[in-house]
Amino acid sequence: MAAQPISILITGANRGLGLEMVKQMLETSQPVKKLFACCRDPDGPKAEALRTLAKKYPNVISIIHLDASDPSSIKKLAQQVGSVVGTEGLNLLINNAGILHRDSLQTTTTENMQNTFTTNVVGPTNITKEFLPLLRAAVKASGKPGMSCRKAAVINISALLGSFQSIQYTYDVLPAISYRISKAGMNMLTLCASEELKKDDILFAALHPGWVRTDMGGEGADIDAQESVKGMVGVIASLTERDTGTFLDYKGKPIAW
Amino acid sequence: MAAQPISILITGANRGLGLEMVKQMLETSQPVKKLFACCRDPDGPKAEALRTLAKKYPNVISIIHLDASDPSSIKKLAQQVGSVVGTEGLNLLINNAGILHRDSLQTTTTENMQNTFTTNVVGPTNITKEFLPLLRAAVKASGKPGMSCRKAAVINISALLGSFQSIQYTYDVLPAISYRISKAGMNMLTLCASEELKKDDILFAALHPGWVRTDMGGEGADIDAQESVKGMVGVIASLTERDTGTFLDYKGKPIAW
Repeated sequence: MAAQPISILITGANRGLGLEMVKQMLETSQPVKKLFACCRDPDGPKAEALRTLAKKYPNVISIIHLDASDPSSIKKLAQQVGSVVGTEGLNLLINNAGILHRDSLQTTTTENMQNTFTTNVVGPTNITKEFLPLLRAAVKASGKPGMSCRKAAVINISALLGSFQSIQYTYDVLPAISYRISKAGMNMLTLCASEELKKDDILFAALHPGWVRTDMGGEGADIDAQESVKGMVGVIASLTERDTGTFLDYKGKPIAW
Repeated sequence: MAAQPISILITGANRGLGLEMVKQMLETSQPVKKLFACCRDPDGPKAEALRTLAKKYPNVISIIHLDASDPSSIKKLAQQVGSVVGTEGLNLLINNAGILHRDSLQTTTTENMQNTFTTNVVGPTNITKEFLPLLRAAVKASGKPGMSCRKAAVINISALLGSFQSIQYTYDVLPAISYRISKAGMNMLTLCASEELKKDDILFAALHPGWVRTDMGGEGADIDAQESVKGMVGVIASLTERDTGTFLDYKGKPIAW
């Protein structure tokens, strides 16, 4: 029996890991029915590559405006997606949008702290909350036991820098204190949500994409976006109920919180 | 040789753990030169018990206004304290003020998420940053090697609920998702700060006060404020450079992040 086509939503889909994820999600063996590629400015110059990609898959990719810091924008997005997917719901939500300041305790500001938290934690919290009805609809439509990204899952793109165990060997190189605090917060969100929604069969996991050559990671990073996303897409596809509430790297290796 | 008297600052000092801490800090064998007891409304009805206590120690306790969500209020506080302690600096900063909402992923709001983060994380970040010159002055004035609360230390009053390891056995009882995210963030702040300021000999630790019968903890809690603070004051006094960047409970037992 062929796999059931799934619906996916990705935030921050216009560049870096998000854009590569949109691309690779359409190239895997898992058929995609609808892919909602969200970004702040769908018509702007920074979304040109995404628009070009979307033209290749006009029946699958929808580019939708999302300002994750604006609750009304999230509500509107959920309504738009809901009107497309209907009772089949949304199977896979990927909270990928994120920002990073290269600050330390001594150089950070209230603005850095607050806008990093808003984008990296409050946004994913509100998006997840707003999409719960569509994730629950997908669980219902699936009719199968267990958990998977083909049924209903929320993947939060986190970072090793948010791991308490990483401080000792990474802080000197890149303090990024506001970012680390936000990713620890995102990890806590992931774990709390997994606990709260276990009984609903919705899977939650946090992923570390590796240190990637993107605008955020810089040119000196370890791997390119293609390699990172290839790993993450494979990991996402392999997740089961055993993996809910975990923090994994792009190769599937567990990371200590 | 008698112990050198130290200067201490405590936020959220008008009630609960903060008020009890002011009281007990003056009753230990460690002589206190100055104790800055900070709260939002020093003249209001909620600070009456603190005002009564301060009258007993008029040369030691100064009640000072602090709105930790307002960077200009923090700056003003640091100036006021600086003008009192001078080149002797501040030895012990206790970030105790905090708020808790009893929310879950499904019931939380942008407001809950943001005001909890602002009070529990951004406030302590800005206060610590603003007081670094006075903590460094205390290090210089001490002239001794090593770390201790008699030299220069920042104690962040955190909570077991912010531990990733606690979710499995505490989330059902009290989700408090915005609070847990904020305390994970405060723990990350503590660890990052300890790493960044190790070379300056400033000690950082996060403490879990236990589950305490205060306005926040509720009437059904395990211990009273007196027992919790007795433990914490003892733990604080015992800290050395081996303990910087750790998360301990009020009995001194390490807690996993």
